[in-house]
Amino acid sequence: MALVVQKYGGTSVGDPERIRNVARRAARYRAEGNDVLVVVSAMSGATNGLIALAHQITDLPDEREMDVLLATGEQVTIALLAMTLLSLGVPAVSMTGAQVRILTDSAFTRARISDIDTAGIRAALSQGKIVVVAGFQGVDAEGNITTLGRGGSDTSAVAVAAALNADVCEIYTDVDGVYTTDPNVCDRARKLDRISYDEMLELASVGAKVLQIRSVEFAKKYRVPIHVRSSFSEVEGTWVVEEEGNMEQVVVSGVAYDRNEAKVTVRGVPDRPGIAARIFGALSEKNIVVDVIVQDVGEGDRASMTFTVPKTDLKKALSVIEPVARELGGAEVRSDTGIGKVSIVGVGMRSHAGVAAKMFDVLSREGINILMISTSEIKVSCVIEEKYLELAVRVLHDAFGLSKEEG
Amino acid sequence: MALVVQKYGGTSVGDPERIRNVARRAARYRAEGNDVLVVVSAMSGATNGLIALAHQITDLPDEREMDVLLATGEQVTIALLAMTLLSLGVPAVSMTGAQVRILTDSAFTRARISDIDTAGIRAALSQGKIVVVAGFQGVDAEGNITTLGRGGSDTSAVAVAAALNADVCEIYTDVDGVYTTDPNVCDRARKLDRISYDEMLELASVGAKVLQIRSVEFAKKYRVPIHVRSSFSEVEGTWVVEEEGNMEQVVVSGVAYDRNEAKVTVRGVPDRPGIAARIFGALSEKNIVVDVIVQDVGEGDRASMTFTVPKTDLKKALSVIEPVARELGGAEVRSDTGIGKVSIVGVGMRSHAGVAAKMFDVLSREGINILMISTSEIKVSCVIEEKYLELAVRVLHDAFGLSKEEG
Repeated sequence: MALVVQKYGGTSVGDPERIRNVARRAARYRAEGNDVLVVVSAMSGATNGLIALAHQITDLPDEREMDVLLATGEQVTIALLAMTLLSLGVPAVSMTGAQVRILTDSAFTRARISDIDTAGIRAALSQGKIVVVAGFQGVDAEGNITTLGRGGSDTSAVAVAAALNADVCEIYTDVDGVYTTDPNVCDRARKLDRISYDEMLELASVGAKVLQIRSVEFAKKYRVPIHVRSSFSEVEGTWVVEEEGNMEQVVVSGVAYDRNEAKVTVRGVPDRPGIAARIFGALSEKNIVVDVIVQDVGEGDRASMTFTVPKTDLKKALSVIEPVARELGGAEVRSDTGIGKVSIVGVGMRSHAGVAAKMFDVLSREGINILMISTSEIKVSCVIEEKYLELAVRVLHDAFGLSKEEG
Repeated sequence: MALVVQKYGGTSVGDPERIRNVARRAARYRAEGNDVLVVVSAMSGATNGLIALAHQITDLPDEREMDVLLATGEQVTIALLAMTLLSLGVPAVSMTGAQVRILTDSAFTRARISDIDTAGIRAALSQGKIVVVAGFQGVDAEGNITTLGRGGSDTSAVAVAAALNADVCEIYTDVDGVYTTDPNVCDRARKLDRISYDEMLELASVGAKVLQIRSVEFAKKYRVPIHVRSSFSEVEGTWVVEEEGNMEQVVVSGVAYDRNEAKVTVRGVPDRPGIAARIFGALSEKNIVVDVIVQDVGEGDRASMTFTVPKTDLKKALSVIEPVARELGGAEVRSDTGIGKVSIVGVGMRSHAGVAAKMFDVLSREGINILMISTSEIKVSCVIEEKYLELAVRVLHDAFGLSKEEG
């Protein structure tokens, strides 16, 4: 008998008929002798509807009250799913984050889980009940309702699975697994059977949107096997697991891309210590996340600094950088939104030389100019002109042997 | 400095603009030096929307899960109102029933409040915050979410006011007070300045829908002065208070009516002890509330029993009564939905003789036949044909001196 945690996203519980399908699947797992705990998101559209309501009131809603508001979305789903199970004659009980006592810090709208009380869950499971837990939400030490940020239900599910020492955390979604790249861009993309936590982290952080990054970090830390699969079929999906010996034989596991970044160049800054700290300190104060950073040695005593920020933060970033540039003696600030980032990811890079060089070669043969380069132990990213982004994904996918046989 | 509890119903918080009006009023009371606690209902339509969602799943939703679902309605309102106040620069904090710890029994969908923990509320008030509490909901000793039944927010407000020993509980609604009768039926109806708890209880129970009965019982028990008034104007409404000496000078305070009952007659039942218990025991087992009951001595050893039940329960009532009637030896069961009940209410009846006789006389002069009569210390009710109901209200209203001067 296994303990299975299943997580269903908003589209999987988007209407009563889909909730019924979720209930049937959970009931079947239970009938097969498993203990079953289900974590659910808000019904698709519900969270956006609540946000729109808040924005009719004020542009900057208080974050504590925003969490009180948003937490109702998942509370609706747990009630509907539990009453569906009960109407099918399956013992079940719903629990909000506060009722489970999913303890978080008090960083409203982006709280982090610190502890999960499993006593109530275990008691209900031991009575043979399917436990239906609200994802995305928790409670702080003072009893305030908190939420975990976009995609937080993944993290709820993995955290609950970790706390219960569950055998598997199944993440049901509207795709049937993790692919070598985006099938919309490259029709020869293949579904991966297995992928390591580290590879998944790099793929997620460069734009693959299947799993929230924090949930993968959690899974890695507590060694929770994740099974990403479709809620609309019975097909095996992708297992996200600890790195295994034979994984290194594959040099590159996936090609990811990201078109949500913009490039900012600060030219003619004095080439002396402390300048980078000034620029990036000013950005971080405004909570702007800087991704790739490149510093060129320029002519004489002047250098230039290039970096990327989310397109949505570009305006704010420029308003922060321009005064700093003026103080630095007339440094010039330029920005470019016509860029994209393409990345290859694979634990095999650790033991294979020349992977980056091959990537640069493949891109150059297509006449694609590389604007910026960034590397980690298991990832190489290139910033290129956006118009070449999809081409770059396809040629790299082919060049690193990821494409399925032409059918 | 006073402690004021304000309760706003669903129409008063029906959209962001109305919520803004509620926030402004609460903020003004606070600016005038009062401690302010606001109890809110779900936005108008929200609760019915949630019920409809549940009914898409099953005809008989589990009651515990129904309460988890319905409680989200008020949670949305408290978040929106608190963020409105905060956006206006007014310190405020929202609390769910569970966060306050409005302790109830575990009778889901119709729970009763047993205790209210005021520590959290008092702490927030002492920090100068307006406290925004979700009406209609509580939590049982095991931490399950409960709701108090339709109109339960009135009870929440009065119970919180009682627990805090508040100076007044203001009930804001879409009418500007309690009237001598329904102005839609009688255009000479007058708004009452003051009314006693007992009179309000009788008026509420016979169909005046301004306040939930249980909230008035609570107010009477804990002597909480209630001020019923309009959320759309600044006009004084009606005070519901302890009986005062001069109240008895007015013999009749109001005329109420109810067209939601149906009449059931069981004819030819044996005239021996235990028969009434059989019939009404069977009805109460099915949670059918019986109102007026009349037993006629019939011919020989047979009697007949007539009573009223809510129209919505008539079908269920007949399915319960018919088998009992057969067991009782072929008693005949008839029902009639074309009836209505008209009642006169007033504490003055205690000290004035002949009030009931006058009522019968007034009705008979209009040729209105009385089908059933029921009396209490401060109320006389007559069941009549429904087609005469509005006429009866008007003539009684005039006859007992309630009508305002013709303008």
